[in-house]
Amino acid sequence: MSVVTLEKCRENIRKQLDNVVDFWLKYSLDRVHGGFFTCIGKDGKIYDELKYVWLQGRQVWMYCRLYRTMDRFHKPEILEAATVGGAFLRKFARVSSSSGQWKCAFCLTRDGKALKVQRTIFSECFYIMAMDELSRLTGDKDMQLEAEQMMEQLIYWVQVDPSGLGRPQLPGEVPINSLSVPMMLMCLVQQLTEGRGQEVAQKYKELGNWCVEQILQHIQRAGTAILENVSVDGSELPGCQGRLQNPGHALEAGWFLMLYGAQSGDKEIHRTAIRNFVELPYQYGWDKEHGGLFYFLDVDGHCPTQLEWSMKLWWPHCEALIAFLMAYSHTRKPELLEIFSEVYQYTFSHPYSPNETVNSLGGWADLNGGVVAVQAMEQGS
Amino acid sequence: MSVVTLEKCRENIRKQLDNVVDFWLKYSLDRVHGGFFTCIGKDGKIYDELKYVWLQGRQVWMYCRLYRTMDRFHKPEILEAATVGGAFLRKFARVSSSSGQWKCAFCLTRDGKALKVQRTIFSECFYIMAMDELSRLTGDKDMQLEAEQMMEQLIYWVQVDPSGLGRPQLPGEVPINSLSVPMMLMCLVQQLTEGRGQEVAQKYKELGNWCVEQILQHIQRAGTAILENVSVDGSELPGCQGRLQNPGHALEAGWFLMLYGAQSGDKEIHRTAIRNFVELPYQYGWDKEHGGLFYFLDVDGHCPTQLEWSMKLWWPHCEALIAFLMAYSHTRKPELLEIFSEVYQYTFSHPYSPNETVNSLGGWADLNGGVVAVQAMEQGS
Repeated sequence: MSVVTLEKCRENIRKQLDNVVDFWLKYSLDRVHGGFFTCIGKDGKIYDELKYVWLQGRQVWMYCRLYRTMDRFHKPEILEAATVGGAFLRKFARVSSSSGQWKCAFCLTRDGKALKVQRTIFSECFYIMAMDELSRLTGDKDMQLEAEQMMEQLIYWVQVDPSGLGRPQLPGEVPINSLSVPMMLMCLVQQLTEGRGQEVAQKYKELGNWCVEQILQHIQRAGTAILENVSVDGSELPGCQGRLQNPGHALEAGWFLMLYGAQSGDKEIHRTAIRNFVELPYQYGWDKEHGGLFYFLDVDGHCPTQLEWSMKLWWPHCEALIAFLMAYSHTRKPELLEIFSEVYQYTFSHPYSPNETVNSLGGWADLNGGVVAVQAMEQGS
Repeated sequence: MSVVTLEKCRENIRKQLDNVVDFWLKYSLDRVHGGFFTCIGKDGKIYDELKYVWLQGRQVWMYCRLYRTMDRFHKPEILEAATVGGAFLRKFARVSSSSGQWKCAFCLTRDGKALKVQRTIFSECFYIMAMDELSRLTGDKDMQLEAEQMMEQLIYWVQVDPSGLGRPQLPGEVPINSLSVPMMLMCLVQQLTEGRGQEVAQKYKELGNWCVEQILQHIQRAGTAILENVSVDGSELPGCQGRLQNPGHALEAGWFLMLYGAQSGDKEIHRTAIRNFVELPYQYGWDKEHGGLFYFLDVDGHCPTQLEWSMKLWWPHCEALIAFLMAYSHTRKPELLEIFSEVYQYTFSHPYSPNETVNSLGGWADLNGGVVAVQAMEQGS
């Protein structure tokens, strides 16, 4: 792929990003109750008024990041959407759990009443990302503090005692290192420390290192596989759970790790990120027959128990585009650009299904991915 | 379809049932720890040792029912499997929840340690079915009592106070009548009362009537749709949840209702069962282009949020086969037999995917369905 072709990719992705931002600004923002609708048809019609907290957090993060870092998005309507969404999130997302700890709801009614609370940490992650990024725009120190307090809560659940998440402790349960947890925490460390100075960097340094260590434990079977769930001492777990592979997650962890390696100057981590978390998941996760990345796989070739395992979702392709472009921009190895090109062609020639683009299960990822991809391309071409 | 062709269907289903029973007897029963493995490859290899409680309950129920009601299964190995499975279930399935009430675990380790508890009533339903059916073989009055005690617990959760299920009460939550709940309770009423005499029948009579009333509330939009979730006063709910359709569930409710109508002599219910819960779900649920029943649909034609909505699973086809055959055997209307024939041809010419036949997500339904279908055919030809 020549530089000219890459330039064309950039133009297309830039156009896509503009369209997606226009669409969501126009239809998702609720000017009556604040916050963002999640379920929007291709024609812009709201087909469900529920407001998913992860999408509130991601939209707030996105608009702030666009406003703050990209000139063409430095516009009042972007700032307004971020502020209105942030106020809604801050006012309604947090619910106090039976243990007296703060949780974030998973979804809210249109007017902000909590409807469902998941027993995981992910709604909280998106809350933190949004609050931290918004505090950078507004300069609101309380908001930054709230983000850091929720982060402390998260660290406590992950490293000390998960009982506040609301899952009963059961005798058959084995503690698990699930890739999504250290991956998201590492993303948050990068978010909270970016440009905040030495003191904040120091505060989260140990956690960042811990995340890297936890992520690397997912390299299994003599470096030939990334497994989604491993034991807390880094060995393979029995059964379907232990053999589960999620190529999109591995690729996502890959570009987080690459950023870590580049920022810390750790070349070994950087090499591992590309070899084991970018090239490898593409090798086992790409459908050689029909193209595209599988959602789930079983490392021994059994049929995964997830009914949707063979679906080609939008978000893993986003992760792959970002990861390969970033890997290429850091190394200039042509074979990485070749794979980027293959994924790019597949991704933009297969229109994704409506329940992916616009609803709660995957929609917003394209915009996150879009921003990062455009930013990566600014470096990458 | 002539009687001769129907006789061929019966022969085939009988053969399939024999094969399925042989397979599960051979590979699923764990002679070391008791209970049944759930995840078995086509070659008989166990690819995960977890024991799902619903499958424990269903296998116990199945072997007991086969042993008790069908001559060719009245064999010592069937009785042994039922007894070994029942002992495991009775010993390990129940866990006491934080509210001090008994819940059933959703899945157990090989040696019976609880691994996961769902915040629903369904594991408990299969526990009750198994214990009641097994008590009929063994004559164990305590076991029958345990089934009835768990049933009381269930009724309390559904009709009085659901907090013991473990879901936090949230301000945005609206109480919902979900079709699966009254449908399963009605199935349990039929199970617990069958042949138990007047006293037991009287005990559950009111509950049975309540279930029918709750099920009928799912007929919406002037009789043109069965909606999976409605409000507790029987009106349509807003959003995706309110528009959700699950043709397989509607058909399943259909044949439970038909049985109720036939047993109680209520002809109006019987007609409604066939018209609204058998013919109608087939009309909107059948894929006119490729054949087969969709898993989920949106009554207004939006794309359901469930990623797996368009998959053709084995179990809804089982429900359809039973429902149409039963409807035909009760009415002798040729058009019902025509649809049975169409579903039959589709079902047996599309081999289902491995994660459906053998794993935790759908496998055992075929055996349940197989027995009922064979029994229905004994009446239906």
